Amino acid sequence: MSGQLETDNPSFVLHGVEDVTYENRPVPDISGDQVLIQIKKTGICGSDVHYLQHGGIGPFVVECPMCLGHESSGVVVKLGPDVKPIHGLKEGSRVALEPGACCRSCADCKAGQYELCQYMKFAATPPSIYGTLCRYYALPADLAHPIPESVSFEEGAMIEPLAVGVHSVANLGGFKSDQTIIVFGCGPVGLLCMAVAKALGARRVVAVDINQERLEFAKSYAATDIFIPGPKNEGEDGDAYTARVAAELQQTLNIPERGKGAIDLAIEASGAPPCVQLGLAVLKPAGTYVQVGMGAKMTVPVPLFYIISKQIRVIGSFRYGSGDYPLAVSLVERGLVKLQPLVTQRFAFGEAKEAFEITKLGKARDGKGVIKCIIDGPE
Amino acid sequence: MSGQLETDNPSFVLHGVEDVTYENRPVPDISGDQVLIQIKKTGICGSDVHYLQHGGIGPFVVECPMCLGHESSGVVVKLGPDVKPIHGLKEGSRVALEPGACCRSCADCKAGQYELCQYMKFAATPPSIYGTLCRYYALPADLAHPIPESVSFEEGAMIEPLAVGVHSVANLGGFKSDQTIIVFGCGPVGLLCMAVAKALGARRVVAVDINQERLEFAKSYAATDIFIPGPKNEGEDGDAYTARVAAELQQTLNIPERGKGAIDLAIEASGAPPCVQLGLAVLKPAGTYVQVGMGAKMTVPVPLFYIISKQIRVIGSFRYGSGDYPLAVSLVERGLVKLQPLVTQRFAFGEAKEAFEITKLGKARDGKGVIKCIIDGPE
Amino acid sequence: MSGQLETDNPSFVLHGVEDVTYENRPVPDISGDQVLIQIKKTGICGSDVHYLQHGGIGPFVVECPMCLGHESSGVVVKLGPDVKPIHGLKEGSRVALEPGACCRSCADCKAGQYELCQYMKFAATPPSIYGTLCRYYALPADLAHPIPESVSFEEGAMIEPLAVGVHSVANLGGFKSDQTIIVFGCGPVGLLCMAVAKALGARRVVAVDINQERLEFAKSYAATDIFIPGPKNEGEDGDAYTARVAAELQQTLNIPERGKGAIDLAIEASGAPPCVQLGLAVLKPAGTYVQVGMGAKMTVPVPLFYIISKQIRVIGSFRYGSGDYPLAVSLVERGLVKLQPLVTQRFAFGEAKEAFEITKLGKARDGKGVIKCIIDGPE
Amino acid sequence: MSGQLETDNPSFVLHGVEDVTYENRPVPDISGDQVLIQIKKTGICGSDVHYLQHGGIGPFVVECPMCLGHESSGVVVKLGPDVKPIHGLKEGSRVALEPGACCRSCADCKAGQYELCQYMKFAATPPSIYGTLCRYYALPADLAHPIPESVSFEEGAMIEPLAVGVHSVANLGGFKSDQTIIVFGCGPVGLLCMAVAKALGARRVVAVDINQERLEFAKSYAATDIFIPGPKNEGEDGDAYTARVAAELQQTLNIPERGKGAIDLAIEASGAPPCVQLGLAVLKPAGTYVQVGMGAKMTVPVPLFYIISKQIRVIGSFRYGSGDYPLAVSLVERGLVKLQPLVTQRFAFGEAKEAFEITKLGKARDGKGVIKCIIDGPE
Repeated sequence: MSGQLETDNPSFVLHGVEDVTYENRPVPDISGDQVLIQIKKTGICGSDVHYLQHGGIGPFVVECPMCLGHESSGVVVKLGPDVKPIHGLKEGSRVALEPGACCRSCADCKAGQYELCQYMKFAATPPSIYGTLCRYYALPADLAHPIPESVSFEEGAMIEPLAVGVHSVANLGGFKSDQTIIVFGCGPVGLLCMAVAKALGARRVVAVDINQERLEFAKSYAATDIFIPGPKNEGEDGDAYTARVAAELQQTLNIPERGKGAIDLAIEASGAPPCVQLGLAVLKPAGTYVQVGMGAKMTVPVPLFYIISKQIRVIGSFRYGSGDYPLAVSLVERGLVKLQPLVTQRFAFGEAKEAFEITKLGKARDGKGVIKCIIDGPE
Repeated sequence: MSGQLETDNPSFVLHGVEDVTYENRPVPDISGDQVLIQIKKTGICGSDVHYLQHGGIGPFVVECPMCLGHESSGVVVKLGPDVKPIHGLKEGSRVALEPGACCRSCADCKAGQYELCQYMKFAATPPSIYGTLCRYYALPADLAHPIPESVSFEEGAMIEPLAVGVHSVANLGGFKSDQTIIVFGCGPVGLLCMAVAKALGARRVVAVDINQERLEFAKSYAATDIFIPGPKNEGEDGDAYTARVAAELQQTLNIPERGKGAIDLAIEASGAPPCVQLGLAVLKPAGTYVQVGMGAKMTVPVPLFYIISKQIRVIGSFRYGSGDYPLAVSLVERGLVKLQPLVTQRFAFGEAKEAFEITKLGKARDGKGVIKCIIDGPE
Repeated sequence: MSGQLETDNPSFVLHGVEDVTYENRPVPDISGDQVLIQIKKTGICGSDVHYLQHGGIGPFVVECPMCLGHESSGVVVKLGPDVKPIHGLKEGSRVALEPGACCRSCADCKAGQYELCQYMKFAATPPSIYGTLCRYYALPADLAHPIPESVSFEEGAMIEPLAVGVHSVANLGGFKSDQTIIVFGCGPVGLLCMAVAKALGARRVVAVDINQERLEFAKSYAATDIFIPGPKNEGEDGDAYTARVAAELQQTLNIPERGKGAIDLAIEASGAPPCVQLGLAVLKPAGTYVQVGMGAKMTVPVPLFYIISKQIRVIGSFRYGSGDYPLAVSLVERGLVKLQPLVTQRFAFGEAKEAFEITKLGKARDGKGVIKCIIDGPE
Repeated sequence: MSGQLETDNPSFVLHGVEDVTYENRPVPDISGDQVLIQIKKTGICGSDVHYLQHGGIGPFVVECPMCLGHESSGVVVKLGPDVKPIHGLKEGSRVALEPGACCRSCADCKAGQYELCQYMKFAATPPSIYGTLCRYYALPADLAHPIPESVSFEEGAMIEPLAVGVHSVANLGGFKSDQTIIVFGCGPVGLLCMAVAKALGARRVVAVDINQERLEFAKSYAATDIFIPGPKNEGEDGDAYTARVAAELQQTLNIPERGKGAIDLAIEASGAPPCVQLGLAVLKPAGTYVQVGMGAKMTVPVPLFYIISKQIRVIGSFRYGSGDYPLAVSLVERGLVKLQPLVTQRFAFGEAKEAFEITKLGKARDGKGVIKCIIDGPE
């Protein structure tokens, strides 16, 4: 199979703000324990769009031309000489790509929290110049996670955002059967957090958003209950608003403040300040709150009073780490999480710009809502 | 000894805002598993003063006359018939009083987090009408923690705030030998958090405050390093200020952002928003941040960006729970924590108002700074 | 309803070895936070039979006449004046009884591990003289766990052994979705451990027993794989036998020694030494092994070599504790665990001796195997 | 400095049972992230002696000539081009060598438990042919742990066995201030476990051995209490013996079965079956038992009854892992653990055979007891 490799590597490359071109890049060399992947499907994520619009995200500024894309699946077409059998790969293996390669030797990597590695090289994130919107991508063998035949390449591309949900809900959130979760934000990450909670045996999955259509999709997908916070009353201050809406939520959905059926875990996947505040207000004492949504502002008003008096545990969720990809693959393989319903638009490789555009707009040309756009690899 | 009980119970009772009197209350009856304590020493805490000034704290409003005081030591003078030998009490036992009696049968109590019990009856906190600024106080035997002869009654009275430090640093913060801690606020709770960290084998203990005199005391007591955050520059926004001061702190004290010597645990014991922000900024990735200080406002601007990108664990600290009092007593008994240096003023029972007054002012008549005032029990 | 209480309390009482009679005992008084339960169904357990046969189990020797029975469901017929609303009880509430009342004030109770309370009063276990094979039983309100209409009294009686499974698999074993479990012993406890693992999202559930019929039932119930260890070869020593059978199991069932699909959790519910040894041999490195089965002998040959070289965690499982009953009820309520298939024989209250007899024999008069016998409460 | 490298690499090489020679081996090449160490001091361990006597340990059989030695300190003489600044190394850095290089990409390595890596290459352990009884040794930079000037090379060589103690007591045992530990076996590992417990703030450190002289040394070193189990009575069976000796220990040393002052952690560092049994008998309910000593036999009679009824956690301890070396260095650097008292004999490189011989005998030519022999690197 490796004899049949193409010699070119068409790539979708960002040069600066709104400056993106198709280019032919060299086929990557692979070293000892790496594999070469032929990309099959790539999902578009909000961060990809943000790079395109702004040329960077916070401290990550694009300085050299950078190939976009990091949510991908593909086929192994070549193996380095030192790839270990334990990774279960051969030429032709179908895989989901984990896009971040850590250094493996710093204290964080060795402590089992490689997502915090300071030397992380992450696809489509500076200082890396590589992304997965191309034909061939090289990565360490242990980051090419095999997917069975029953999992499609489209689903394989969505293992990446699902791994964010697994990291937030299962790994950091410690979610367990019979618990109740509330998820703020019905974008792809919020929806996948709901799906993970459902798969892990949630008693109830409460979805919160300000968009009725998105909430209805959430309910058809993985939520058991939905809630739209109403607007602030005239003259009502933030704390009073939060307390009032929290009481309304508890009453409307018949959720107690503590004890059986109270909210054990809050996942904030919107980044919106009122959701942060409401999440802390409705959580039960000793509950866990996971912040996964990065909002427009670095700093947000947070009701410390609830954190202290209810002894809440707040955890920030950054990417994914040890065990997250394998569990994500398993949940899909066993039919416990459905990814297909989230794919709302599909594009050929040559239509990548269009995919970015409508992801940005949040609405397709035909008026259909966007959850996840998937782009084919180059033919 | 119980034959010699006095028949009156002089008490220092709050009736409303700044309305406090000495009264004689009945000697409490004790039921099955309770003991009766003759109070020897009582410390004054900011919350006591707050009740006196405002007649309440947040949702806890004084409606019936309430005896003040909850940081106390004393002597067991009578035991209920069902007190178990395992509690190690007899008439004459010297004890530190744990002032909160939980219900013991709700899910929180049974899960080992009794500090969150919704039926908690806490001394000098409504709806309880009892406090320890009196001669006799009744409490369940397991809350009367024996102190050895080598621990004075003054020290015994300060086991209560020390237990707050143990809860925050050891129990919730999981602090371990060789770790580095930063503590914001050099009041009694902050100082005791430093003392606990030192006793548990801290590599470095960094104290932060805006008062040089308090910092110097901290350094003489338990801190290895001290830091005063400078003022905000003109036109500097909050995030920029936080980032600049964090960098200054790291440079001045030679503290790395991560790896050996980085800050593992931040204890926020001031409630001041700039400290909250600085604490999150200087903490290492995957570090723990414990919020123990309740500020003037319910809600504070918090840089979620640091929590997410460093995957920080934020925990609110509320009172104390399982195992905290025993460890506090042991640290004092073994000489690992010194409490004597914190007692700055002493008062007779009849001088209680004066003790409240100078605690409020933070400065004694002689100009000496106040850390902890101790009031004798009635003679 | 409390007006309609019967005045007698027919009870099935053990006086000594094989000496058991029906007696009328007084209807129990209930104190402050207790409730009185009218017993509806009671399951018979191996320990009940052991008391009947031997007059005791280890250090627990029957000295006074003791009512038998501890796996029961019933209806609340009277509430003490101090029962808290949080327990959700009223007259007529259908409940599963948790049979052990702890002291609530020792260090173990306060640390959330009440199952280890040294003052535990456990139904049908000396020094308690009370059991649930009677009409009326008094217990603290928090131990009367409400069951919904959809859960039958028969199922309610089996919450007790299910709680043992929850304690072993979920609580101590920390079992998670996608993990693989092996369970040794296909008696009621082993089967319920399998059911819990399945309910929590097990990848595979391997049942081991020496009885083909029991294994087949296990497979029809909750196991995905079954295995009978063959006999020892002539001259083969114990360690060689264990290693050989472990290899056979791994080969036959295609289970790797480590990595994806390896055995994460072993539950030993047989007490048989070869199972103890095999469990440690087949477990993956860093796996967890829970010993729930108490064998005939106090001491068993254990291959420490595996424990050390694979850094295994071995945990003993004793009864059930915080959160176990509520999760057990929830698993049944949500249809994730089926209890009905385990009820193999049913008896009227007057036939209790017969129920004990066939539980002892392990086979009914009609030749049908016994898993669980259920006895009605007195009419 | 690298210009001054010697061109030969004198090595102490094992060819088979009792067949060992001095040979000149090539100076190792170092690849990207490796450093070359000039060995200064090497301690001899029981496993080294076992290899010499038996040509292997269990499944690890010497097939190719293998250099002995794995407890070493040295000086960095050359750095690979990819060594990261975070490791804090330069030419001339004084370091303690961590002798096991893991694969870094298997699930165990990525989960933070690299000691269980199936691809581990460990000094002086087949299939590795390298050991540290030589002039030059190559290892990955992150395994060369810097030691400050205040820590001697002799102490640096003993960081290895100290790391075993840290792994067992701090990491796996979770030992905390105010807890009580019992350690079985007063060899180097047992003594270092005691030293770690003392450094972490033990309330009491109980040493158990059958040799009075070793116990007395333990008491002079880190134990607060010592105990020799008496012999078995005629006709006494194992369980009765264990129970009797446990009661004697508790009585003699005034140690309760549970509650304050009870034994929280047992470390078994002798491998002797009666110690295993006694350890489980004296441990408090919910206590932790760590098995670090590998006895002569794979399988040992273990009283499961205690494990079940006290819900004990038994953990096997294998080598050391994430964070153990850094904590070990810190404990010595801060003067909390003294290593010097354990060095009982010193040898030149050319006297290595003698060092092995007297380690085997456990007694020097002058009759002095052996705890740890240290061998100089080649001059």
